[in-house]
Amino acid sequence: MSANFAVPAPFNPPRRTLMGPGPSDVYPSVLQALAKPTIGHLDPLFIQMMDELKSMLQQVLRTDNAMTSAISAPGSAGMEACFSNLVEPGDTVLVCVNGVFGTRMLENVERCGGNAVVVNDDWGKAVDPQKVEDALKQNPNVRIVAFVHAETSTGARSDAKTLCALAKQHNCLSIVDTVTSLGGIELLVDDWGIDALYSGSQKCLSCVPGLSPVSFSAAAVDKIQSRTSKVQSWFLDQTLLMAYWAGDGKRSYHHTAPVNALYGLHEALRLLCEEGLENAWQRHTERHLELRAGLEAMGLQFVVEESSRLPQLNTVYIPDGVDDAQVRSTLLNEYNLEIGAGLGEFAGKAWRIGLMGYSANRANIALCLKALSEALA
Amino acid sequence: MSANFAVPAPFNPPRRTLMGPGPSDVYPSVLQALAKPTIGHLDPLFIQMMDELKSMLQQVLRTDNAMTSAISAPGSAGMEACFSNLVEPGDTVLVCVNGVFGTRMLENVERCGGNAVVVNDDWGKAVDPQKVEDALKQNPNVRIVAFVHAETSTGARSDAKTLCALAKQHNCLSIVDTVTSLGGIELLVDDWGIDALYSGSQKCLSCVPGLSPVSFSAAAVDKIQSRTSKVQSWFLDQTLLMAYWAGDGKRSYHHTAPVNALYGLHEALRLLCEEGLENAWQRHTERHLELRAGLEAMGLQFVVEESSRLPQLNTVYIPDGVDDAQVRSTLLNEYNLEIGAGLGEFAGKAWRIGLMGYSANRANIALCLKALSEALA
Repeated sequence: MSANFAVPAPFNPPRRTLMGPGPSDVYPSVLQALAKPTIGHLDPLFIQMMDELKSMLQQVLRTDNAMTSAISAPGSAGMEACFSNLVEPGDTVLVCVNGVFGTRMLENVERCGGNAVVVNDDWGKAVDPQKVEDALKQNPNVRIVAFVHAETSTGARSDAKTLCALAKQHNCLSIVDTVTSLGGIELLVDDWGIDALYSGSQKCLSCVPGLSPVSFSAAAVDKIQSRTSKVQSWFLDQTLLMAYWAGDGKRSYHHTAPVNALYGLHEALRLLCEEGLENAWQRHTERHLELRAGLEAMGLQFVVEESSRLPQLNTVYIPDGVDDAQVRSTLLNEYNLEIGAGLGEFAGKAWRIGLMGYSANRANIALCLKALSEALA
Repeated sequence: MSANFAVPAPFNPPRRTLMGPGPSDVYPSVLQALAKPTIGHLDPLFIQMMDELKSMLQQVLRTDNAMTSAISAPGSAGMEACFSNLVEPGDTVLVCVNGVFGTRMLENVERCGGNAVVVNDDWGKAVDPQKVEDALKQNPNVRIVAFVHAETSTGARSDAKTLCALAKQHNCLSIVDTVTSLGGIELLVDDWGIDALYSGSQKCLSCVPGLSPVSFSAAAVDKIQSRTSKVQSWFLDQTLLMAYWAGDGKRSYHHTAPVNALYGLHEALRLLCEEGLENAWQRHTERHLELRAGLEAMGLQFVVEESSRLPQLNTVYIPDGVDDAQVRSTLLNEYNLEIGAGLGEFAGKAWRIGLMGYSANRANIALCLKALSEALA
C-alpha cells in the first residue's frame, strides 16, 4: 500500500425503503441466500440448483423455451445478448422508441452493424401498433421488431401481445424488453409469441441487481444457428451458453457463474412461484390503486394515461415550484425512503415511484404517502 | 404455474473447502457483506462506497490509472472489455497462447475484427519472451501484445514485466490477464507498464464470482478515445463506463450496478489492504511450499517447472492407474473438499489444487493432504 493509504472502514449501508425504478426492496430470505457458503460452479449440487432455477424461470415466463437462462450480468447485458445474437451486420431492425430503453436498443442495433427503422412515440405513451404496422408495410426488409414492454424511464406499458402478432404477420422475430414487467404484469411469452426477451433481477423479482433472465424461442434459435458470422461477443454468445445451461445434468465450462447471486435469484423465483404468478400480478394492481388514490388525493398527476399505466412504476409530475432534488433528499435522509428521479426527458419534471415485487406492500405505500406529504408541506 | 409444477425447496449448499482453480473459499465477512441491505445504485452512500472500492483497487493493482473499476460481470467479460475497447477492426494483435485463456483471447481478437499473430508455447510452460520478441520483429504492424500472467488452466506464471517491456519497445500496448495473479503474486501495473488488465473477484481476492476488476493506462485511454468506430459492446464501452465510475462524487447512469456484489468486493479488498499486499504474496508462497512438500512426499509430480510455478495454483499429474473422477468425487462427497479437474489438454491428466486468498491456509493444506492420501490409498 502507499504509506499514507487509510484502509476504509467496513461499509454498513442503512436500511432504505426502495420505491424507485429498481432496485426494489429485496426479500429478506434472498439476502440470506446470498450469504450461504459458496460452492464450485461445476459442483453437481450447483448444477442441480441451476436446473431448478431454469425451470422456475420457464414457469414465470410462461414458456417452454429450452434456451432460457440468466445472463451473469445486469439487464443491459441481457439486452445486448438478444441483439448481438440475433442481429447480423446488414440486418434491418424496427426499433420502437418511447423512452430511454428504446433509445438504448437503437444503440445496440447500430453497434451490431444492423440498420434501424425507428418508430417514435412520445415519452410516456405506449408504442402505437398502427405506426408499427405502417412501418412494417413500408419496410418489407425488416427482419426483427424490438420494443420495450414496460418503459422504466416513463412508466408506460405497451401492448406486447399485439406488437408480437404484428411482427409475426410480417415474418419478423420480436425482441422484447421485459426488465420491469416480469413478475409485475401479465407476460405470456409462448402465448404471445415473443422470440427473444431479457429481464432484470432487481425489479419485480425483488432479487439484488446483477442478473438478467433471457429466453429465446425455437425460431430465434434457428436464426442464431444459421448465422453466417460469429456473435461479436464471446461472453454473450448463446451457442456457447446453451451448452452451459444445457439442463441435461452436464455443463460445458464457459465462464465462472456468479454462484451466490444465483442462489439469490433461485430464492426470489421460489418466492414468486409460491405466491403464484397471477396472485403477484393482482397484488401489483391492487397496491397501485391504493397508491394512486393517495397520490391523487395529494393533487399529484400521473404522466401516463390510465390505459397504459404500469402498476409497478408510478410516474407523477413534480408540482410547480417544488425543488425536485431537495424533496428526494429529504425522503432519503429523513425517512430512509428512495423514490426515483426523472430520467432523460423527464429529468427534473417527474418522479418515478416503484411498487415492485416485495416493495409492493401497504407499509411502503403508507410510508411513501405520509413522507411525501410532509416533504411537500 | 403449470398445475403440476412443484416449487423447489430452498437451496442449502453444504460448506465445502474450495481448493480448485476458483472460486476459492470466501472470507466470512464477505459473505456477510453480501447480505447487507440493498440500497439504490445512485444513493450518495453507495457512490461513496464505489469511490472507496476504486481507490482500494488502485492500491492492490499498484496503479494510479484513473480508468480503474470493476466490470459488473465475470472475468470473461473483463477480458472482452479490454479487447473490445482496444481492438478496432483491422488492428493486428499478438496473442500468446499457452493454455485455455490465451486461446480465449484469440477468440476475442477475431470477434473484434482484429488480425491475430499467435505465439504458441506448450501448455504448462511460461510464455517465451524470445519468441515474442522475434514475432514483434517479424510483424512490425502489431499494435497490441496480449498474454496471460497466471494461466489458470495450467498453473504457469509468465514474466509480465519483461513481456510488457518488450511490447513498449515495439510501440505496442499490452493487455494482461491477471485473473489468477491479482493478490497472489507480485503484480505492479504502473512499474511494469501494463496498459490494460482484467482480473476476477473469485480467485486470490476471495470474493464471490461475478465481478471483474479492470484498469487502463493513459496510453490505453488515448487509444480508446481516438477510435474511429464505436466500441461494439454498449455494456462494456469504457467511454460510457468512465462517466459512471468517475470518482468525482457524480455518476452518470449507465447500468444498474450489482449493489450487493460490490459490497462483497469492497470487503474483500479491505481485508487484503489490511493484511498488506506484500504480506499476502508472502503467505501464498509460504503455504505453497508447505503444500508442495506434502504433495511431493506422496509422490505427486508438478506439471510446471519450479521457476514458473504459481504458488496459488498447483497443477500435478494424476498418477497412472488412478481414476480421476472417482478421486475428485470422493474428496467432494466424503470430505467436502473441491480440487480442480484438468482443463483442455490436461483434462483427465492433471489436477489443479488452488491455494488462493482465504483458501491459502494451513488447515486447508492439512485437509487436502490427508484426504488426498486417503483417497489415493
